[in-house]
Amino acid sequence: IGVEDPGGPGQRSLLAYAGATPVPVPVDAHGLDPATLGGCVAALVTPAHQFPTGVVLTSGRRAALLDWARRRNAYVLEDDYDAEYRFDREPIGAVQGLDPDRVVYAGSLSKSLAPALRIGWLVLPGPLVEGVLRGRSATDLAPPVLAQAALRTFLAAGELDRHLRRTRLAYRERRDRLALAVARDAPDLELAGIPAGLHAVGLLPPGTDEAGVVAGAAAASVGVYPMAAYRVVPRPGDRPGLVLGYAPLRPDAIAEGVRQLGTVLGVAPIRA
Amino acid sequence: IGVEDPGGPGQRSLLAYAGATPVPVPVDAHGLDPATLGGCVAALVTPAHQFPTGVVLTSGRRAALLDWARRRNAYVLEDDYDAEYRFDREPIGAVQGLDPDRVVYAGSLSKSLAPALRIGWLVLPGPLVEGVLRGRSATDLAPPVLAQAALRTFLAAGELDRHLRRTRLAYRERRDRLALAVARDAPDLELAGIPAGLHAVGLLPPGTDEAGVVAGAAAASVGVYPMAAYRVVPRPGDRPGLVLGYAPLRPDAIAEGVRQLGTVLGVAPIRA
Repeated sequence: IGVEDPGGPGQRSLLAYAGATPVPVPVDAHGLDPATLGGCVAALVTPAHQFPTGVVLTSGRRAALLDWARRRNAYVLEDDYDAEYRFDREPIGAVQGLDPDRVVYAGSLSKSLAPALRIGWLVLPGPLVEGVLRGRSATDLAPPVLAQAALRTFLAAGELDRHLRRTRLAYRERRDRLALAVARDAPDLELAGIPAGLHAVGLLPPGTDEAGVVAGAAAASVGVYPMAAYRVVPRPGDRPGLVLGYAPLRPDAIAEGVRQLGTVLGVAPIRA
Repeated sequence: IGVEDPGGPGQRSLLAYAGATPVPVPVDAHGLDPATLGGCVAALVTPAHQFPTGVVLTSGRRAALLDWARRRNAYVLEDDYDAEYRFDREPIGAVQGLDPDRVVYAGSLSKSLAPALRIGWLVLPGPLVEGVLRGRSATDLAPPVLAQAALRTFLAAGELDRHLRRTRLAYRERRDRLALAVARDAPDLELAGIPAGLHAVGLLPPGTDEAGVVAGAAAASVGVYPMAAYRVVPRPGDRPGLVLGYAPLRPDAIAEGVRQLGTVLGVAPIRA
């Protein structure tokens, strides 16, 4: 099963645990390149906001991905983990809508409400439904219903829509604060992936010692994630970078964190 | 993995789905006979109240089961699904307490509170903990916490103890009503497995057409389960019987159901 590289380590370990072999496929500025999927039987992708780069899978690549799936009789697994949060333009349609017979769509409330709910959903091509239900049932018979019943009330009252509007504004404010703070206090960082989602990527000048920056930030009580943690196969031209999760932080904390990070970058050893 | 025969079909399909081969092992009046486990790597048992016969695994068999496990380096999987409900004497200790290194103990709130909660627990031998956590994490990262948090409050307030005392009385009353109604209106039924649990077995006279009785009862809107539904390997001397779940029924409904069942038995075709 093709997986995005860089991508979420959890996706790879989950596939491996299930007996599949995750095949890392490079992500560029247009998203995953379907030409590199070869003989995979499926591809697990994050088209709306690639994790972690934040790249949107372009319409050309979407068409090519579905074309690959049809030719190979393969499936596209669309992990739509944070599409509710798009700040600068209309939400992007799901790849699933383009070919419901070839795409398994997965949505979740983990980003928009709370991961502790453990509520998500699949939209499956018809022939896959029975096998998925069998696996779900063999796992624990059924998911617990109390939170689902509460969610039904929440949805019926329009509260999820209100919650999304409210949090979209809040997260957009935090993102804007991040961008402002980076421009002022850490200008060496080049922000990417910021039109959507709950995290951004801060690209570092080529040759920067990414691990050194992460360690320096940690020493200043600032938590940032190295891009290396999401890469499987190192490739020439890989740009060092940091993954910056801003959603749960107050704007002032974001600004202070970036200020500290700017100080670290000011003294960061450059490898090259 | 050895499974009890008769036993729960769900246990067998779950093991098969996980890639194990369920090996049916006969249950007699003392429970499962460990001498028949042969080369199994584990045995899945319901020692406190065998499902569905209601037989208690005797102390001699418990010792023999653990002896088998130690000699074979095998595990006993103890499914303690309804041990909270024992009406005529003190609760029976878990097999797990006799050898915590050889027994995986599984408890649940499905019988005592609600299956919809999907809350259960395992007590594992140390060397198995890491693998189980890995599998649990690969399944869905973690179980949802809201119901667990509510349960903590419920437990801390002593409400589970109160609930168990209350329901023990209510289920005992229903069981007594069942026994009384059977003695009066369906004397051909021989009740078994009634000192505990939330169901009883009604043994039928040898040669009775079990399926015919179930169908006749269904025609009178009385739901009973044929023992055949729980048997894997038919054996000489198998006694026909019905599994009677009384716990969710009002006492009057139990009495009325038994009355209808008695009428069916009065006209039931005998095969032999």
